[in-house]
Amino acid sequence: MRDVQTLLEALPYIREFHRRTVVIKYGGAAMNDPVLREEFARDIVLLKYVGMNPVIVHGGGPAITNYMERLGMEVKFVEGLRVSDAETVELAKMVLVGKENKDIVLRINRAGQPAVGLCGDDGLLFTVSKRELQSGADIGLVGDIENVRVDVLNHIAEDYIPVIASVGADADGRSYNVNADAAAGAVAAALGAYKIVFLTDVDGWLDNRGELISFADPDDLRAALADVSGGMRPKLEACLAAVDANVTSAHIVDGRKPHSVLLELFTDGGIGTKIGRTS
Amino acid sequence: MRDVQTLLEALPYIREFHRRTVVIKYGGAAMNDPVLREEFARDIVLLKYVGMNPVIVHGGGPAITNYMERLGMEVKFVEGLRVSDAETVELAKMVLVGKENKDIVLRINRAGQPAVGLCGDDGLLFTVSKRELQSGADIGLVGDIENVRVDVLNHIAEDYIPVIASVGADADGRSYNVNADAAAGAVAAALGAYKIVFLTDVDGWLDNRGELISFADPDDLRAALADVSGGMRPKLEACLAAVDANVTSAHIVDGRKPHSVLLELFTDGGIGTKIGRTS
Amino acid sequence: MRDVQTLLEALPYIREFHRRTVVIKYGGAAMNDPVLREEFARDIVLLKYVGMNPVIVHGGGPAITNYMERLGMEVKFVEGLRVSDAETVELAKMVLVGKENKDIVLRINRAGQPAVGLCGDDGLLFTVSKRELQSGADIGLVGDIENVRVDVLNHIAEDYIPVIASVGADADGRSYNVNADAAAGAVAAALGAYKIVFLTDVDGWLDNRGELISFADPDDLRAALADVSGGMRPKLEACLAAVDANVTSAHIVDGRKPHSVLLELFTDGGIGTKIGRTS
Amino acid sequence: MRDVQTLLEALPYIREFHRRTVVIKYGGAAMNDPVLREEFARDIVLLKYVGMNPVIVHGGGPAITNYMERLGMEVKFVEGLRVSDAETVELAKMVLVGKENKDIVLRINRAGQPAVGLCGDDGLLFTVSKRELQSGADIGLVGDIENVRVDVLNHIAEDYIPVIASVGADADGRSYNVNADAAAGAVAAALGAYKIVFLTDVDGWLDNRGELISFADPDDLRAALADVSGGMRPKLEACLAAVDANVTSAHIVDGRKPHSVLLELFTDGGIGTKIGRTS
Amino acid sequence: MRDVQTLLEALPYIREFHRRTVVIKYGGAAMNDPVLREEFARDIVLLKYVGMNPVIVHGGGPAITNYMERLGMEVKFVEGLRVSDAETVELAKMVLVGKENKDIVLRINRAGQPAVGLCGDDGLLFTVSKRELQSGADIGLVGDIENVRVDVLNHIAEDYIPVIASVGADADGRSYNVNADAAAGAVAAALGAYKIVFLTDVDGWLDNRGELISFADPDDLRAALADVSGGMRPKLEACLAAVDANVTSAHIVDGRKPHSVLLELFTDGGIGTKIGRTS
Amino acid sequence: MRDVQTLLEALPYIREFHRRTVVIKYGGAAMNDPVLREEFARDIVLLKYVGMNPVIVHGGGPAITNYMERLGMEVKFVEGLRVSDAETVELAKMVLVGKENKDIVLRINRAGQPAVGLCGDDGLLFTVSKRELQSGADIGLVGDIENVRVDVLNHIAEDYIPVIASVGADADGRSYNVNADAAAGAVAAALGAYKIVFLTDVDGWLDNRGELISFADPDDLRAALADVSGGMRPKLEACLAAVDANVTSAHIVDGRKPHSVLLELFTDGGIGTKIGRTS
Repeated sequence: MRDVQTLLEALPYIREFHRRTVVIKYGGAAMNDPVLREEFARDIVLLKYVGMNPVIVHGGGPAITNYMERLGMEVKFVEGLRVSDAETVELAKMVLVGKENKDIVLRINRAGQPAVGLCGDDGLLFTVSKRELQSGADIGLVGDIENVRVDVLNHIAEDYIPVIASVGADADGRSYNVNADAAAGAVAAALGAYKIVFLTDVDGWLDNRGELISFADPDDLRAALADVSGGMRPKLEACLAAVDANVTSAHIVDGRKPHSVLLELFTDGGIGTKIGRTS
Repeated sequence: MRDVQTLLEALPYIREFHRRTVVIKYGGAAMNDPVLREEFARDIVLLKYVGMNPVIVHGGGPAITNYMERLGMEVKFVEGLRVSDAETVELAKMVLVGKENKDIVLRINRAGQPAVGLCGDDGLLFTVSKRELQSGADIGLVGDIENVRVDVLNHIAEDYIPVIASVGADADGRSYNVNADAAAGAVAAALGAYKIVFLTDVDGWLDNRGELISFADPDDLRAALADVSGGMRPKLEACLAAVDANVTSAHIVDGRKPHSVLLELFTDGGIGTKIGRTS
Repeated sequence: MRDVQTLLEALPYIREFHRRTVVIKYGGAAMNDPVLREEFARDIVLLKYVGMNPVIVHGGGPAITNYMERLGMEVKFVEGLRVSDAETVELAKMVLVGKENKDIVLRINRAGQPAVGLCGDDGLLFTVSKRELQSGADIGLVGDIENVRVDVLNHIAEDYIPVIASVGADADGRSYNVNADAAAGAVAAALGAYKIVFLTDVDGWLDNRGELISFADPDDLRAALADVSGGMRPKLEACLAAVDANVTSAHIVDGRKPHSVLLELFTDGGIGTKIGRTS
Repeated sequence: MRDVQTLLEALPYIREFHRRTVVIKYGGAAMNDPVLREEFARDIVLLKYVGMNPVIVHGGGPAITNYMERLGMEVKFVEGLRVSDAETVELAKMVLVGKENKDIVLRINRAGQPAVGLCGDDGLLFTVSKRELQSGADIGLVGDIENVRVDVLNHIAEDYIPVIASVGADADGRSYNVNADAAAGAVAAALGAYKIVFLTDVDGWLDNRGELISFADPDDLRAALADVSGGMRPKLEACLAAVDANVTSAHIVDGRKPHSVLLELFTDGGIGTKIGRTS
Repeated sequence: MRDVQTLLEALPYIREFHRRTVVIKYGGAAMNDPVLREEFARDIVLLKYVGMNPVIVHGGGPAITNYMERLGMEVKFVEGLRVSDAETVELAKMVLVGKENKDIVLRINRAGQPAVGLCGDDGLLFTVSKRELQSGADIGLVGDIENVRVDVLNHIAEDYIPVIASVGADADGRSYNVNADAAAGAVAAALGAYKIVFLTDVDGWLDNRGELISFADPDDLRAALADVSGGMRPKLEACLAAVDANVTSAHIVDGRKPHSVLLELFTDGGIGTKIGRTS
Repeated sequence: MRDVQTLLEALPYIREFHRRTVVIKYGGAAMNDPVLREEFARDIVLLKYVGMNPVIVHGGGPAITNYMERLGMEVKFVEGLRVSDAETVELAKMVLVGKENKDIVLRINRAGQPAVGLCGDDGLLFTVSKRELQSGADIGLVGDIENVRVDVLNHIAEDYIPVIASVGADADGRSYNVNADAAAGAVAAALGAYKIVFLTDVDGWLDNRGELISFADPDDLRAALADVSGGMRPKLEACLAAVDANVTSAHIVDGRKPHSVLLELFTDGGIGTKIGRTS
């Protein structure tokens, strides 16, 4: 280490986050770029070692689409949600739980702290119900999380880093695709997390002129939400849900930047957008 | 309940198995037949409720082959082992961990006791190394389990039924197919299990005339093993490994029969083959 | 075991009763018939092994009367209660605590789960006061339970099956006979038991035509109680006291039938009378 | 308190005995005299309050004989042991467990610390086998303690003072009379007690001239034992058994003297006979 | 021990104080006289051994004055409080924490129960703020206790006797002299102590004619306080603060009498003044 | 934080030291310079927050000499040890325990993690005996540590940072000066510490030409020790004692450099001398 000064500058943050739970929605470039994903694993292990309780929630859309195309299945989205029949959900679950989740687990393991992968089925973590669109369009087996049973998560988090794939089933055991942003927000709310961080492929939440909004309080966000569409919308909705459930702040950061989670958590201004009661 | 007498007849067995770990290698018809797999889930939940600690280990070959064929991948076996390149292992892992494992977890959940699915990656459960065949043939990424780290299993088993998919990685994070019979044997040995039960699609271990061998001690088995080939061989090897590691007895039963696990554990003679020190 | 199906039919009941306390008032033929009492001990051990917390409360009138007659003491009852001077109480306590209680303990021990016998004196379990009859008749040292201190019971029930003889003392250390039905009701109320079951020598609570009343809610029972006399009355009063104290249901069953406790708990309709809020 | 000096003189003894187990064989005048037995209860509670773990073992011969005579049963002793048929054992058990034991429990309760009464049946505390006399005489159901299972005792002693009646059963559930001195010695040995104290109706172990032997080491005692007969013999045998099992010292004191247990434990020379490795 | 009767007379008091916390303000002759301070250490160890939780709070004015004079520092008191500049506080802290506190710790250690010395700095035990006198006089670094953080005290008291020197610091780390009577009262209030005892060099609180006031309730005391001055005033204020914070009673005793703490706690009338709700 | 990279470079060290005990001998410039001592407190708190268990041992010679001179006491050293009569020890103890120790405690408290100060008297931490010099010279009350009782230390270290002043007493309660280097070595050995670090006012252990010796194994050190004198000698002896007692490595660093403890622990080569089995 060239410069212990930096370590000491982290001390106030380490102290602030001690024994706190931080939920990280993982996705985008940080998950797909080979260098960034190695760095992400090390960053998460560092958070655990300095006394935090990091919980990862991830999706994996591109890999699902890729396998669907290889299998000649039709890929179709309505309002940004994947239209999902039973075969699509089976495949999505295979990709998320059997491929993406274990890739993350293995990388965290190798970075020095064992992880355990879960999905909504394990320990009845998620109870899901069919999402009804206001437009009346039927997008099939796409679900909303109705309930999060945190027992299994708390159990695992004592000794391991939990990594959660965003799929789940309803009370009859029928599986659904679940939006990973929404899943992360529900998990943070249920755990009473201290913070939630969303990794994206943009700088953060941008205003109409494309400028980064560094801070917004929940009321600002609520007012602005009507005009937001695209991939940022579910993230902002999840931020709002989390903050409304007493998560102290929600953060949207640029996962393309190296160590974006650490930079957001361990520097004063942060690098992205912060949603909270006070800046 | 029509006949409480039957319940009382179970008492000596319930007493014998109280707080004992029983590893069950799940596969074959019991896993593929819709009626049998519902019954299996209920049987396992019953074992948990009467005080046992059941641990499930499963494979899922047919579903892997099915997906490989749909994707136009070559399916090839050498000495009964699937020749596996990296793409095959990725797919196998998706099928086992993301489809078969969660199907079992969901059915056990619905039968009334929450389960948690794991694979060899979770909590560093398995450390695997490449299997070298005596024939010198290279079958690619097929692995032997070198080490089982039981911490995560014991942690989960306090409150949940653990369900383990037989895949794992080596120290460099490279994934391998792992034979599920061998994985079950290694898990039973590492846990110091009381019993291990293999579900098959035959009556048990049959002699040359096709008659069921009800009981064999380890030395009998060792002597006979040279002449055994096919799918029974890895099961018998796993039985031997388990019994040599002080598992009290190993059982091979016919999973096509309803409630075969209960019948083997809760009746005097059992219904299949028992390998142990005394009959 | 001939038929594992039966075991599986018990599963919903086992699940319902898991970690629940069931108080069983033991007496009558089930206690005096050599075959029935062996079966009772095994039934109770089974309840413990499938995860319930059974607590036995017993009397022992016939054996007391027998010893009193051998000693030339006068046996006299008023309103169904034994008129008791100090010598009678001493003898009753000897018979209940030193003979009947230990007979039950020994049989449960031999059935495979250690029991511990207690009376109201142990760990200050019962505090008793003299019962005053409305008729003004003085029946001597017959007591009502004023207080149940459950510490000792909870302590014992962690590892053992508690068996309670219904005698107790007042704050000055003077001993009293205590009606065993009333004692069982008080214990169930104090423990917050899930169910209480009274073993009798009739089918259950019978209506005027001698027909079994399968179900009654507390208000039915309260209305009918004025017309009930004899040995059924203290049982019904104890049922009412227990249900009023939030015990979910109280059951009166025919202890002359083999395995009556199991049949009542583990079959849908039960075999006797159930007092509760809903049938 | 007139004189705190006395309290301070007790300090070295209180320190020495802190968290130590002392088994007290209770009997004779200390148990039968109304004043002495009240004082005994208070003495025992004091021991508990100053941090010791007192365990009481008692017999009750005179009360048994009294009831036998009232019932017209034959009272007969061979070599100091009561010839016991099944009816005698039943009565003895009633007297010891249902009368004497609860009298002691009630008095200790009233002295301010709750006690719990046990006999050899409770929690399988004693396993007993038939005693064979060297003379070949058959004295019926008189037993030797083969095994003491201390779990129930340790469990009770956490919060209560255990009071043990010296009866027990064999593996078939047949009950036996057990000599209380021998039972006390076996309990002390099994608990790894620090001291055992026998209350008698003489000054202690007396030599041929009737003088008190203040101290003897185990070898002295072994040498002298051949010449001892009568009621002192089982006490000395129990002393020897206890000291041979690493109980630090065994004491025989005159229970007719007020507070004899306290005087023996809390004064330098003691008042009776001490058997140990060093004086 | 000559007379166990005395020990038994202590039983009701031992019972009353079992597992209770008693704060003892130590000072005066009991701290300075070589014989009395040895006896005090033994008395405190006795309290611990009979099951109480004694906590010592001490000052040490004479030794401070002595060292100040040796160093040529000016010794000045205003309204009974030592005028304290930073140099005075440094010296006072050295004397109290490094000399007086460790003398007490060593004597208690030797009396047989390890003690641990603390001051207000350790584990942030005290948070102090500058005391403002009503007269407006500036007495420098004399502090009032604003907050007592009992964690460290409870932690230590599990296994050790805590001995507290009455110094503390404010939130900026500036040290202050703290009146030991006030510190003792604040500690007793924060711990929810059962009793607090002040050792003085007079008989207790005396009325105008110099007669001992044996008992006063808080309202009596409040009414009388206006007329009290001198060293008794801070003691009475601390008594009032403690009793107002639900300490059952506060006691002022003559520390010049041998074993004054024991005599006050273990005799009916006590020897000094008791402040409480009922006599 | 400007540069999270540095934080990540610390990760391997944080992982290595996780839940490990590191004893730090504190003294010299790092203790006397106002800037360095603030930094030291923050460094120690950082170690605690990243999961280590730091234990501080300190001396305080200059402040003792200063007070001795102010009091007109003779200051004299023999073989580098302060000649100490009872008055000197009393003063040294006051300075070390009441001034230096609490200064360190207060600074660590303010840096964000509560500390608790101890000396050898607290909880019988040190048992000391008089040091005899080979020269036969009598240096008075200078002691060697004979025994370290770690209970109190482990107790405190669960929640607080322990800070130990190097004074102690013998079995008779007589106090001694104890060399702080030797005390630190004895504490590290008794705790089974992972590392011990000595802060000095030189670069480390220097060879004859004044060059820093970066690494030495215990045998090198043993061979060289005969030729070392002055203040480095007790440090090297303490290093040797610690390493011989299985402390993994002992380090001598230049406390004048900012963050010397962090630089030694968290950089590959370290900045001073390391004594251990392998470099």
